[in-house]
Amino acid sequence: MTETETVVKSVQRPTLLVNEAICRHNIEKMSALAQRSGVTFRPHFKTHQSASMGEWFRDYGVSSITVSSVTMARYFAGHHWKDITVAFPVNLREIKEINTLAEKIHLNLLADHPAVVRTLAGQMKQETGIFIEVDTGYHRTGVHWENTDLTDALLETIGKTGFLRFRGFLSHTGNTYSASSPNEIMMLHRTAIERMNFLKERYLASFPGLIVSLGDTPSFSLTDTVRGIDEMRPGNFVFYDLMQQNLGACSYKDIAVAVACPVVATYPGRNELVVYGGAIHFSKEYLMRDKQKIYGLAVRFTEKEWVPLEPAASLTALSQEHGILHMDARQIAAFQPGDLIYVLPVHSCLSANLMGRHLTTTGEELVHMNGSQDPLQS
Amino acid sequence: MTETETVVKSVQRPTLLVNEAICRHNIEKMSALAQRSGVTFRPHFKTHQSASMGEWFRDYGVSSITVSSVTMARYFAGHHWKDITVAFPVNLREIKEINTLAEKIHLNLLADHPAVVRTLAGQMKQETGIFIEVDTGYHRTGVHWENTDLTDALLETIGKTGFLRFRGFLSHTGNTYSASSPNEIMMLHRTAIERMNFLKERYLASFPGLIVSLGDTPSFSLTDTVRGIDEMRPGNFVFYDLMQQNLGACSYKDIAVAVACPVVATYPGRNELVVYGGAIHFSKEYLMRDKQKIYGLAVRFTEKEWVPLEPAASLTALSQEHGILHMDARQIAAFQPGDLIYVLPVHSCLSANLMGRHLTTTGEELVHMNGSQDPLQS
Repeated sequence: MTETETVVKSVQRPTLLVNEAICRHNIEKMSALAQRSGVTFRPHFKTHQSASMGEWFRDYGVSSITVSSVTMARYFAGHHWKDITVAFPVNLREIKEINTLAEKIHLNLLADHPAVVRTLAGQMKQETGIFIEVDTGYHRTGVHWENTDLTDALLETIGKTGFLRFRGFLSHTGNTYSASSPNEIMMLHRTAIERMNFLKERYLASFPGLIVSLGDTPSFSLTDTVRGIDEMRPGNFVFYDLMQQNLGACSYKDIAVAVACPVVATYPGRNELVVYGGAIHFSKEYLMRDKQKIYGLAVRFTEKEWVPLEPAASLTALSQEHGILHMDARQIAAFQPGDLIYVLPVHSCLSANLMGRHLTTTGEELVHMNGSQDPLQS
Repeated sequence: MTETETVVKSVQRPTLLVNEAICRHNIEKMSALAQRSGVTFRPHFKTHQSASMGEWFRDYGVSSITVSSVTMARYFAGHHWKDITVAFPVNLREIKEINTLAEKIHLNLLADHPAVVRTLAGQMKQETGIFIEVDTGYHRTGVHWENTDLTDALLETIGKTGFLRFRGFLSHTGNTYSASSPNEIMMLHRTAIERMNFLKERYLASFPGLIVSLGDTPSFSLTDTVRGIDEMRPGNFVFYDLMQQNLGACSYKDIAVAVACPVVATYPGRNELVVYGGAIHFSKEYLMRDKQKIYGLAVRFTEKEWVPLEPAASLTALSQEHGILHMDARQIAAFQPGDLIYVLPVHSCLSANLMGRHLTTTGEELVHMNGSQDPLQS
């Protein structure tokens, strides 16, 4: 048997399969972009949440990372990562753990509320980096880029504290996910960079070391050189997924993960096949294709890449454990209950979080922060 | 401090709070319905997935349960449940574990494909109950109720096997979830019962012990007496949620769970408040209210029940960890970063599965099959 056949044989329940070669290619490409642009690469680890996969990044020179929670920071700190930015507003209920972390590693936090900075100032007992989070147009969190009164107030408050060190301005251009074309993604990206540089120019004289840090996978996937920022924090690119493919940020051949799902029932009469693989494996994130919600796309498993079935077969409904694949009756004839079918997730970060376990296509188990949710499968 | 205040103080990260009194009331009510109707109560445990909560059910006479996976069956078998129906099509890749389980407990499986029954017949080494799953109108899985040729073929195949014991017909009326009114729910329910009885009458002479088993929370929540079935398998009723309230299957006061979320940022200028509580806590299940997707509804925490804020404040967007609450600027003024806000989930089963941990409103930790995804919170 080939390695792939051995892996396929071992899968009993829905399993997130990771093609390591594709992941490494994706990491290498993003790392090369950062290097030739002279920009620090601080990848977001919320996508994979895996200490094993973290080690792959070290092979491409990565030593500083981004995470989305204090819990995740603590997990990676426990796996020898010494420079971590928590790219989420400070949760004041976790001050104790934040202090513990700051004792051990170079920790960077985000602030956009003076009250939060004041509380931090009173309670932090360790030197900690602090970014002002900037809203460059996404309108989720952050100080609106034009609100320099608030930025001034934040900087004044930070300046009075003993342990907080101002690091610079940070933004996540999550609005690129709603763009209707790669051109629009790049337009939003350039606008965000302009707005961040407005702030950089305004405050650089007072804070000569300040940096500008920008997130999001779509824009960094669509550019050859990055200009006007000091640090980039994409995360999803390591796996990519249907959402990124839909945005034009990647091709199918760049997608590194698929969920292997056991076929449990076939209904050729209604062009449907039911797999063990539901909302607790894929999440309920969807895309619209041909006016139909889809939660995943069936692919063939090859050693090299996932190839969509033709005609396309999509997950059109999910229950807690059931997935309904809409599939041509002729295609269904090729499947029996007990076979496996491979499905690209719409949003790989959420699917990986739910599965709590990765298996590489060559049979290696990768640890995940959430631990295995499937204690039976060894 | 009251118990409630102690609990509130202990919450650091998004936490599923369970009001035990409401759960017990919901269990008692459903159990009483079964008892006065002379119907076996076999609740679905996929909603809570908690051995601790399983014990509460025993207090109301429950000894047989339903689960949605072999993994879950094994978990509850390990917690002294001896009579379990896996209400999911048999996954042939788990035959080994199915045999192991059948050695220890009374196990019931579902079948709707002769090929699956033949494989089971060849591989089962233990006596196992088998239901024919019937599609009474939901069109997810099961033999279409009118397709008696297929039912005949299945029964013939089952009859030839050594270890499979035919138990009866089982259906999940999941189409009630798409109903537009309680009346329509009850109409679908009655139709399903008629269709199941068509089968019962047809096959009772040949199989005198056969039973008819029906699922779904909405219909059993809306009826005073159950007639025409032998077993009922609702699950969600133990928690209920916004989806059930929206269907008219429960009131707000019946909802037993809310997610306690730390407030991390406030933006009164745009009527939004950001909480730590995102797609990995709520799932991306949504409802439409006033032409807007909502992922949760903010409530006040009282010892007795959750009470929606007025005017209503809804979760209108979720990222992986961020939740955006749309809220009146005046209401926002009452919250500071570091406060907690309580949010009813749209779909409690998916939220409970994601959280992997329940805390009661009186401070008791309840174990969950997925274990804690939050190893820091003790």
